[in-house]
Amino acid sequence: MVASSLLLAATALLLRTGSAQTFRRLGTCPTLGCILPPDQADFLSGQYFDIRVEIHAPLNGSEATNSPPDEKFTLTIEKEGGRRAADVSNYFRTEEPKLEKWQFSWYEDLFAQDAKTPTIVNVTSKAWRYVQLTDPGEYTATLTWSGGETVASWLVRDMDTSRKAKNVILFIGDGMTTNMITAARHLGHKSINGIFQSRLALDKFPVPTLTHSIDSFITDSANSASALYSGHKSSANALGVYADSSKSPFDDPKVELISEIFSRKYGAKIGVVSTAYIADATPGGLSAHTRLRSEYGAVVDSYLNSVANYTWTDIEGVDVLFGGGAEQFYPPSLGGVTYQDKDYYAEFAEKGYSLAQNKTSLQSLPNDKKALGIFTVNNLPVWLDRNVYPENLKLGNSPDGLKTDQLDPPGLKDMTLKAIDILQTRSEGKGYFLMSEAASIDKQMHSMDYDRALGDLLELDDTVKATIEKLKKDGTLKDTLILVTADHGHGFDVAGGVDTLYLEKQEGDREKRGAIGTYQESGLSQYVVGEQKTEGFPADWDPRYTFHSGLATFPDHRENYKVHKEGPRTPAINLKLLGSSDYYVNYKDAVTGFVVNGTLPIGESQGVHSLTDVPVYALSGPCQDLFSGSFNNIDIFFGMAECLGLSEKGTRGRRGRWGKGRRKNGWGDDDWMVW
Amino acid sequence: MVASSLLLAATALLLRTGSAQTFRRLGTCPTLGCILPPDQADFLSGQYFDIRVEIHAPLNGSEATNSPPDEKFTLTIEKEGGRRAADVSNYFRTEEPKLEKWQFSWYEDLFAQDAKTPTIVNVTSKAWRYVQLTDPGEYTATLTWSGGETVASWLVRDMDTSRKAKNVILFIGDGMTTNMITAARHLGHKSINGIFQSRLALDKFPVPTLTHSIDSFITDSANSASALYSGHKSSANALGVYADSSKSPFDDPKVELISEIFSRKYGAKIGVVSTAYIADATPGGLSAHTRLRSEYGAVVDSYLNSVANYTWTDIEGVDVLFGGGAEQFYPPSLGGVTYQDKDYYAEFAEKGYSLAQNKTSLQSLPNDKKALGIFTVNNLPVWLDRNVYPENLKLGNSPDGLKTDQLDPPGLKDMTLKAIDILQTRSEGKGYFLMSEAASIDKQMHSMDYDRALGDLLELDDTVKATIEKLKKDGTLKDTLILVTADHGHGFDVAGGVDTLYLEKQEGDREKRGAIGTYQESGLSQYVVGEQKTEGFPADWDPRYTFHSGLATFPDHRENYKVHKEGPRTPAINLKLLGSSDYYVNYKDAVTGFVVNGTLPIGESQGVHSLTDVPVYALSGPCQDLFSGSFNNIDIFFGMAECLGLSEKGTRGRRGRWGKGRRKNGWGDDDWMVW
Repeated sequence: MVASSLLLAATALLLRTGSAQTFRRLGTCPTLGCILPPDQADFLSGQYFDIRVEIHAPLNGSEATNSPPDEKFTLTIEKEGGRRAADVSNYFRTEEPKLEKWQFSWYEDLFAQDAKTPTIVNVTSKAWRYVQLTDPGEYTATLTWSGGETVASWLVRDMDTSRKAKNVILFIGDGMTTNMITAARHLGHKSINGIFQSRLALDKFPVPTLTHSIDSFITDSANSASALYSGHKSSANALGVYADSSKSPFDDPKVELISEIFSRKYGAKIGVVSTAYIADATPGGLSAHTRLRSEYGAVVDSYLNSVANYTWTDIEGVDVLFGGGAEQFYPPSLGGVTYQDKDYYAEFAEKGYSLAQNKTSLQSLPNDKKALGIFTVNNLPVWLDRNVYPENLKLGNSPDGLKTDQLDPPGLKDMTLKAIDILQTRSEGKGYFLMSEAASIDKQMHSMDYDRALGDLLELDDTVKATIEKLKKDGTLKDTLILVTADHGHGFDVAGGVDTLYLEKQEGDREKRGAIGTYQESGLSQYVVGEQKTEGFPADWDPRYTFHSGLATFPDHRENYKVHKEGPRTPAINLKLLGSSDYYVNYKDAVTGFVVNGTLPIGESQGVHSLTDVPVYALSGPCQDLFSGSFNNIDIFFGMAECLGLSEKGTRGRRGRWGKGRRKNGWGDDDWMVW
Repeated sequence: MVASSLLLAATALLLRTGSAQTFRRLGTCPTLGCILPPDQADFLSGQYFDIRVEIHAPLNGSEATNSPPDEKFTLTIEKEGGRRAADVSNYFRTEEPKLEKWQFSWYEDLFAQDAKTPTIVNVTSKAWRYVQLTDPGEYTATLTWSGGETVASWLVRDMDTSRKAKNVILFIGDGMTTNMITAARHLGHKSINGIFQSRLALDKFPVPTLTHSIDSFITDSANSASALYSGHKSSANALGVYADSSKSPFDDPKVELISEIFSRKYGAKIGVVSTAYIADATPGGLSAHTRLRSEYGAVVDSYLNSVANYTWTDIEGVDVLFGGGAEQFYPPSLGGVTYQDKDYYAEFAEKGYSLAQNKTSLQSLPNDKKALGIFTVNNLPVWLDRNVYPENLKLGNSPDGLKTDQLDPPGLKDMTLKAIDILQTRSEGKGYFLMSEAASIDKQMHSMDYDRALGDLLELDDTVKATIEKLKKDGTLKDTLILVTADHGHGFDVAGGVDTLYLEKQEGDREKRGAIGTYQESGLSQYVVGEQKTEGFPADWDPRYTFHSGLATFPDHRENYKVHKEGPRTPAINLKLLGSSDYYVNYKDAVTGFVVNGTLPIGESQGVHSLTDVPVYALSGPCQDLFSGSFNNIDIFFGMAECLGLSEKGTRGRRGRWGKGRRKNGWGDDDWMVW
């Protein structure tokens, strides 16, 4: 009935003319011979069902046939490992049903609908009613007719037949998402310094991670990094400290990080991998202690010298540091902006780090030396540009500061697998902690470039898969807790499909919106039609029918719902000609699209973080049980710490002993004496 | 540092002037004496940290004091069950730190910022560095100064100290939500008839429920109900059938529902509760088999007569039916639209049902009789109108069709607890299946009335809590599987806070957007400030600082981000004067707000369903383990069926025997013989 727009427009609640999408003759039937239940149906053993077959003979349109529908089709059923295929009436010992005939019509696309040229389809059909399968296993139903053959695989699930519960109470929150649960929690329950004082009933059971910070319900990446790595909620922009009100960004009260505790107690090795500039908050949070994440130079220094400069334990620098952000490494003479104007490539080299500056040299790094890999001036290019639109790599962003193109950048998987090699070798069985960040899920969501954001999400998934396979092969999976989580969310969702060809051909902004199809008119994903050259990634990033995506709050922008082939998206621009710092819609971003005025402040050029809970997956190895149940983001720290045996048992408070190698060449104890 | 806008505007990455929100002097410090780490901080035993205290003395503004900040404050620490409070320097055996002094400034709100009138604050402070607590338990830190006392409760978590894992690999998908994971899955993995042929690596581990339907990636409530209740994916608008292409909406091939199987095998009793009109898809899916959910009269008939009319097993009607939708019950003479023009109150009464038409009569229904409770003409009023704005109940929607006001409507909790009483009594130990739907989470999200939607989500949570308490008390919790899930999502999220007073005072649409604060300027939830009269619900639905909420795709609308006190929201209207069926922004919906042009087709008056995965919680009782791991919505059916022992083991296919009481007075076997 999905197909018969003409017939049903008067009665179907959700079917609307004027919007449409990947129209289908009959949703379950890609060929002209249809079996219902269709291919891939699962059955409870003993569950009753009807069977219907249909033969379609379109009179016109792209599938037109010159003959009426076959009346002598046959349907057979065969169980795998059972007797050979039997005619369906024999199989169910029922009489042969009467032949039925009817006609229906449908529109092949929105252009056909505008032109009022429906396709007429003649149908022959039979229905076998009220049958059941009680022998678990795989079944094949085969429909044979004059035009061909349709095969449906059915599975009767093999399940325990004993009864465990007497009753079921099924609550359905119609349309309820984790995003709404998060918002409702903030409506009904008080939070003090980031900790809820009461909870939802739902929170007593497995839920994703809460991300809100100590003084606002929206977090930034710095204070969520603090929560994940230290177990302490903090404020926006703060890394590993509680923000005080003093002037110095380095005197705020610090808390020890999991990387520091794990090194201190076990001599474990630390690896930091990110597709962002490496001084960014999520990587930086593993070594820096500052109220201001934007103190990038000092963050980079902390990877090498820990926070010895700022009155803290003396931890050897990280063993692996892979990412972008070369401008905090090459000296000011090349345009760099570094801590105390030093050359940080030289600083790292002096401490025995080997250096990689592209994918090729990354892969040949020795596994027994500390390693620094910095691959671009700023963030690394995303999966989509590296793999589909390599022309966009020509950015003059080589990590040496010489402004040549980086045409051999690594991806998250390359960096992560190499980091594991080095950490395994160097930790000599003492253990390692590796943080691997898919940073551009966030960065591309900010700029509303959903294709690039989701491409990097798929790259993260691909990296997780390769990591598990690698550790399985070398036998260390059982020793290694693998977690996947996010630090916060964006209010992104998809609500339908878009006929981008139809959208492009319409003139007015309001007319263009007619290209969007919702519910049954969304159709199925067209991104995976055709050969997928890389497993788990789209076959086609630029199909005619795309996702109708959006953010819940946004700057001024235009939408044509097509992939941005020329490079990452810029939704809004600063019109300097107008002498203003306000952002306006960027016409060039989607010339064929329509304007959407923003809901965020006009000073915002991009989207912003959102409130929603985020998922946490404990993927393998020991301690998975510590990550089930209700979570605040600080519980990820405590779960990791418990798994690693980082908790101590003593009898009272202690002042720490200062680290042996503590230096005083930067901000130090005296810097908080400011009036 | 959140407070010091003036100081940090030049350096803070995320702090923007021009947008602001619930400004705070210092986020962790609601009084003038501050302890860092603040109240509610948790510590790993042995984790090093710094302590900072600050005494604030504002020179001007609402908190102005006439004296300089105290320089002789004291901080003590005491462990619960330990010795009495000790001075912090003694406690950690460290020397007394030097006194520090500084000054900072902040703006109390956006009006102060526009007027350039900052508040100046003088500060005295001390910091104790590099201390640790190694004795797990609860600690109290008390700051005493000339102006008062601040108390912070700290917890040193008591955890296993043994080491279980050697390594940790932490993957962070920056900004990654379940909504994005869902979209990415559809980008990278093929689905046939609703079943993915490959999966994300992440999907190997606990994830929420996938909701997409057989022929489109966006589901409606009918086909998701089919998946939940039958284990078979279907098409939009279809209930308990695979949609074929024939004209009749009643001849499509059917699959047996969990309610039918459970009744057939064990004589279990079925209860259906919803805050929607009771013929709606989510309740209707438990008894109807039709391609068109809009055949409301036939859906209601199926509750009473099962689908005997349409060639199917003969199941006794449901034992409990509570909800709205009286217009499918009272006869056409009163304006009803019923199946075969019958009076369905009379039809149900004839079969022995007792009837309730308000909350009072609901509560006095006998527990040993079948029960029908129909409370309003259409959907039931939402929690917010029943409890906060009762004037909005005056709708002339009494369930008798006489157009008087229903001033005594029940809520979801009332209906659910009564349904359990009746089902427990009538099932006589044979078991029952109760479906309880919070329908207006969806209905109010459609009309972008986020307050009403989230209020009903909190009511669902309250109902779940009361249900668990009830079953715990009567001893049946161990026999009863309690599940909470959703049938699909909406692209809703919150991305900041709004100063609604400031918004109202600005003139232009672009200026009004300056009232929105993001990140640290979001502030904390103002909905729970003050006394919460009902536990788990807001103290104030109309605070000055509200949520900055939105949908990812939407019709034309206006936003002022305030609760709609006059009744449910109407974002877009049909301007009949223009002779068009297009929807335009409804000015009256948010007079003080600004316009947002839609991204949905102009024929849409509301928001639509979205792609996102939804959560599933197995809350108590047996079989919780069947609901962990990766899920498609059909797996909820199979999990419930396994838990109830509904699977059979036989050796082959069987044709069913027709139900004994099968009638032929409606659509029947012959109706699919149409050409």
